[in-house]
Amino acid sequence: MQELMNGFSKLSKERKIELLKANIPAIKDKIDNIKQFWHEDEALQKRFDEFSENTISNYYLPFGIAPNFLINGETFNIPMVTEESSVVAAASKAAKFWVQRGGFKAKVHSVKKIGHVHFIYNGEKEGLIEFFKQNKQELIKSVSSLTANMEKRGGGIMGCELIDKRASLQNYFQIEILFNTCDAMGANFINSVLEEFARNFEMGFRISATYEPESEMEIIMSILSNYTPECLVTSKVSCPINDLGEVNGMDPQTFSRKFVRAVEIARIDRYRAVTHNKGILNGIDALVLATGNDFRAIEACAHAYASANGSYQSLSQAWIKDEKLYFTLTIPLSLGTVGGLTSLHPLARLSLDILGNPQAEKLMEITASLGLAQNFSAISSLVTHGIQKGHMKMHLLNILNQLGCSKNEVNQAKEYFFDKVVSYTAVSNFINSLRVSQ
Amino acid sequence: MQELMNGFSKLSKERKIELLKANIPAIKDKIDNIKQFWHEDEALQKRFDEFSENTISNYYLPFGIAPNFLINGETFNIPMVTEESSVVAAASKAAKFWVQRGGFKAKVHSVKKIGHVHFIYNGEKEGLIEFFKQNKQELIKSVSSLTANMEKRGGGIMGCELIDKRASLQNYFQIEILFNTCDAMGANFINSVLEEFARNFEMGFRISATYEPESEMEIIMSILSNYTPECLVTSKVSCPINDLGEVNGMDPQTFSRKFVRAVEIARIDRYRAVTHNKGILNGIDALVLATGNDFRAIEACAHAYASANGSYQSLSQAWIKDEKLYFTLTIPLSLGTVGGLTSLHPLARLSLDILGNPQAEKLMEITASLGLAQNFSAISSLVTHGIQKGHMKMHLLNILNQLGCSKNEVNQAKEYFFDKVVSYTAVSNFINSLRVSQ
Repeated sequence: MQELMNGFSKLSKERKIELLKANIPAIKDKIDNIKQFWHEDEALQKRFDEFSENTISNYYLPFGIAPNFLINGETFNIPMVTEESSVVAAASKAAKFWVQRGGFKAKVHSVKKIGHVHFIYNGEKEGLIEFFKQNKQELIKSVSSLTANMEKRGGGIMGCELIDKRASLQNYFQIEILFNTCDAMGANFINSVLEEFARNFEMGFRISATYEPESEMEIIMSILSNYTPECLVTSKVSCPINDLGEVNGMDPQTFSRKFVRAVEIARIDRYRAVTHNKGILNGIDALVLATGNDFRAIEACAHAYASANGSYQSLSQAWIKDEKLYFTLTIPLSLGTVGGLTSLHPLARLSLDILGNPQAEKLMEITASLGLAQNFSAISSLVTHGIQKGHMKMHLLNILNQLGCSKNEVNQAKEYFFDKVVSYTAVSNFINSLRVSQ
Repeated sequence: MQELMNGFSKLSKERKIELLKANIPAIKDKIDNIKQFWHEDEALQKRFDEFSENTISNYYLPFGIAPNFLINGETFNIPMVTEESSVVAAASKAAKFWVQRGGFKAKVHSVKKIGHVHFIYNGEKEGLIEFFKQNKQELIKSVSSLTANMEKRGGGIMGCELIDKRASLQNYFQIEILFNTCDAMGANFINSVLEEFARNFEMGFRISATYEPESEMEIIMSILSNYTPECLVTSKVSCPINDLGEVNGMDPQTFSRKFVRAVEIARIDRYRAVTHNKGILNGIDALVLATGNDFRAIEACAHAYASANGSYQSLSQAWIKDEKLYFTLTIPLSLGTVGGLTSLHPLARLSLDILGNPQAEKLMEITASLGLAQNFSAISSLVTHGIQKGHMKMHLLNILNQLGCSKNEVNQAKEYFFDKVVSYTAVSNFINSLRVSQ
């Protein structure tokens, strides 16, 4: 067992690397390579280091562009950050397809965010209700030093309710507070307000006339919720079936019928729904990352929303009506365009510049449209030539890279595998045969 | 409206950037900066470019280390890639706490992966069942050129069933195939097998004696499922309550009681559960990214699993028994340590080296333990001094960076805000007051 590393966080990057070397002999000759990923500008590197803790380098993810997105009549070239092959290509393909068919129509329904003070109280409910009713405005006022700036920007606390949750857990109550955080993600803002609100509520209630001194009253925690079903956006595409033309070599009628069935399957089958929604998030997360937003928050909320009616299902829907194909996605997306990393990370900053510095609501519309595009491409592949044809080209390149192939070998392999199934064995056998025959 | 960009994918990075400049005047003076993030080694940069499509640069994410994880008696220093502040610090803190209390015990339950051929058939079910029963082995054999290599490594097709889904959707059937992909993520392998299996099944069934030629039979799609509830791992910690000592200044009895209540709240309240699980995934995704695995797949599966019993709930559980605190996490994690990016991305490769090149099952155990550690730290903060205290230090640094503060200003601000609530306004006012007074 390795000895406990004490004070690791206090060391410089260099010293951290030395200590890792000393503790993990197997990486002795490998880890110095990590320094080649440091940015040469020390001040900038320091900024990256300060985003997180115990940093020793930067992890590179490809930064790409999916051009030609027509959304609400405006064109966007969408920055995407993803390690998965075919994702950006698929988004680009769908964008180009729909730009010639009216583009995406997207609309934000609401941008409400939410947080809770979770607490236990085993006294009389009536006294609690009475206190809350009498002092609600005062409590909201008590956090005004924290909310003042957000209010100036048109946001702040939008509502505040006491919720009796004792049917689910003994003595359990919540104070639920609704927020508008304008263009900010607002996590720090919401949590600061909630913690301050909780302190003031506890103090006020304990000294109030309706509090029962013999009772137990305990704040368990105060925290925003990443479940924001009211921070919701819809994007849709539609066009006459005949205007679809051939899709991957399939006639538009057959394509539309299969497309709708594939989406219906994702409405009723959990195994398919998860993968279907994963595909939507492939696109969404790539933009969330590119703009310095928090993809774990987006993921958690989207999948919980997909299970909101008790059975996990597809976030998108498709149908045919009057010889037209309709395809829509409704998804909660709590995104920010100010604060957090958006101005600190030079590439997040550039991503927003590339998008024309949208406000948060417009970013929600762009992001939902990207998710819908991703889903359209994936299903279109699945119901026509299958998903592997597109993937295989990238897969082949990755395997050839791994085998350290020359340009000549790469070209021969590309030609040979044009109409064959790619597997590591098959490619490796092929390359070996080339090498032996030389 | 911008003109359609044709042939964007065919251009060099330089030309892509030029075209973006021409189309988006506002970024004209900004986008050239993106080249400073290119790797100086052209061959290596080319490799990053080939992971995805339409790439113009690399997106930097901090690569850090959470040291001192004791898991099943072995020590790990866990590489983490995250843009979110406090995540690595929280993981490290929990690791150090538990290393002195027996560490993490983790165990993989099963590693089954799953895929489906989704199809429509409106003929007699009996004929279909008969054909499938008679030809199942033959069909499995028909894809043996694809499975041979995986079988050599101990994996391959583990089972294959025909499922009647007509109660949910008209004429809808599935062939469900179970896989063991050993140490590989196996997405390409599974999808290739499924597509080939589907072709052979369709061909075979259509020419079989039991097929009804008048009927409609259509393969809709063949695709793996990211929902892998049987690719499951548990990690747990436990210790006598008194051995916990004071946690963030709170006595161990009060701490344990509040800790268990906080986890119970996440079992019964959806708003809390989503954020609770998001915190678990904060840790998990950081390692998933660091090892070149696919975080969208992990996220989709984990959250769908959290909703499996019909109401979305916490993935972790906590209880007190015989004066001991128990805390466990059970989560599906389909991870790979070979194939995909794991050997192509130099930092994914290094991450696995740092972990001692674990097999996939061990990586599942490490990852689940990291998720549990993250959850432990988050709840410990929430039920004691609140989540903001830790966040605020990082938040303060970010704001100071944004305001372009000098080292002297940073130090004064750190001192001033030691015991005060950090907000953009408050910090900006403080810095302005410093600057005015000079």
